Amino acid sequence: MNLAWIGLGAIGTPMALNLLKAGYGLTVHNRTPGRCAPLQAAGAAVAPSPAAAARQADALLICVSDDAAAEAVLLGAPDPAGAVAGLRPGCLVIDCSTIGPATSRRLAAALAERQVGYIDAPVTGGTEGAKAGTLSVLVGGDSQHLERARPLLEVIGGRITHFGPVGSGQEAKAVNQVLVAGSYAAVAEALQLAERLGLDRHQVVEALKGGAAGSWALEHRSTQMINDHYPLGFKLALHRKDLGIALEAAAAQHLELPVTEQVAAMEDALLASGHGDLDVSALARWFRS
Amino acid sequence: MNLAWIGLGAIGTPMALNLLKAGYGLTVHNRTPGRCAPLQAAGAAVAPSPAAAARQADALLICVSDDAAAEAVLLGAPDPAGAVAGLRPGCLVIDCSTIGPATSRRLAAALAERQVGYIDAPVTGGTEGAKAGTLSVLVGGDSQHLERARPLLEVIGGRITHFGPVGSGQEAKAVNQVLVAGSYAAVAEALQLAERLGLDRHQVVEALKGGAAGSWALEHRSTQMINDHYPLGFKLALHRKDLGIALEAAAAQHLELPVTEQVAAMEDALLASGHGDLDVSALARWFRS
Repeated sequence: MNLAWIGLGAIGTPMALNLLKAGYGLTVHNRTPGRCAPLQAAGAAVAPSPAAAARQADALLICVSDDAAAEAVLLGAPDPAGAVAGLRPGCLVIDCSTIGPATSRRLAAALAERQVGYIDAPVTGGTEGAKAGTLSVLVGGDSQHLERARPLLEVIGGRITHFGPVGSGQEAKAVNQVLVAGSYAAVAEALQLAERLGLDRHQVVEALKGGAAGSWALEHRSTQMINDHYPLGFKLALHRKDLGIALEAAAAQHLELPVTEQVAAMEDALLASGHGDLDVSALARWFRS
Repeated sequence: MNLAWIGLGAIGTPMALNLLKAGYGLTVHNRTPGRCAPLQAAGAAVAPSPAAAARQADALLICVSDDAAAEAVLLGAPDPAGAVAGLRPGCLVIDCSTIGPATSRRLAAALAERQVGYIDAPVTGGTEGAKAGTLSVLVGGDSQHLERARPLLEVIGGRITHFGPVGSGQEAKAVNQVLVAGSYAAVAEALQLAERLGLDRHQVVEALKGGAAGSWALEHRSTQMINDHYPLGFKLALHRKDLGIALEAAAAQHLELPVTEQVAAMEDALLASGHGDLDVSALARWFRS
């Protein structure tokens, strides 16, 4: 099975490397060509455009940063060398990007006209999970497409959940980002309060993390917040983009998400002061500004 | 070692029962006398007033609902039969109530005038932890008092952390409640979004709980939220009271806690519509009103 991969960011690169290690033939493309070097070193072919990468592929996986990038890479607008120009009928696109559910549905419809299948398959688990191959993969799309993709998804993730039709994987990912928002913000606020009260914050974390206050963020990101040092992880700018998707989906349901709105406003302030490339846990910086 | 216990609520009762089971002689008192029945059945003596309960005690433990109750029970104002009238010099008060740090410091000072020691020792871990004896005990006070209390605290809790002088246990508890606020609210918002989008919420929880979105609340309270059924747990009204302590402590440090303030406002709305006696996870009801 020949694979193509487009999008070699912090999550995409280790996912693609895991597919190579599992023995799949892989052709890669990335907008910034330098990002292809680790894959090339590991045996992948490098293509000069999405269309060229897609040409020999039975399945094309993409992992790009937003809706506009996913549309450009797949449909080629405004880039005429989009993947669709190279994809053969019967090929399957597995979209691991986190984008709006409506965009996923639009992409699926456009590809279906060319007899190309599409599933949305955004992931959670961060760079750690991507490296370890233990991501949680949130799938929307036809069952028959998922079954073709499953052997590949099993290489990149430890858990694969099929939520429903195209777009429902993106909806589940939006729910994930709402959880991350409140959960990380709670840790940021709590540690800030602890610091101002003169408590030993490491002692606070150890005492509280096993109880009802416990969270992945408290366990795995409190040290970064205490040290005010935020290696990735997951970029704050991308999380803010994902909260936009969640808030838009909520607004379409006439649903108010007051905590998420609050966290989005805090992230906006941090983006405005240049913190977008830090890990989401840099939410703790909000209190220092 | 003779013990007295005042305050037999949802947390206090199992804590006191565990001390009885560990072989300590125990005299109990509760404002609502009927609450003494399970303790009496297990072998405790029942006293008609805090002062009477305190009279033979080497250590008095209290676990009452708020600052006013702690002051009334210990200092007897306005009740002239407060514990201080019965406490002997050299006795130790272990205050497991969650109250303001300033109140703890005032109580400690008043008791010190009578040669009675005081430590604040609020707990986390809920009714489950109280029954199992696995609470996390957050201690403020003199080390010598803590060492006298330690054998008792080891019966009621699996982890004992000494944060500093009197009041610092309360400060750590306030930090805990800030974590609970954001963390529970995130789960409430996320599940509401998932429901409106038509996702299977149990499937969402299973897919997301192992990643960066994970929390104790997601693991242990999402089912209550999905079923819209909120057995205790920990009363929403008491959590709101505790958020008041946290917000007051933050304000004294000129610190804004935007997410906690948002959750406090949501809890106020729920209290106003009569949901105060439900578990904190009834935060999910906010979206249904």
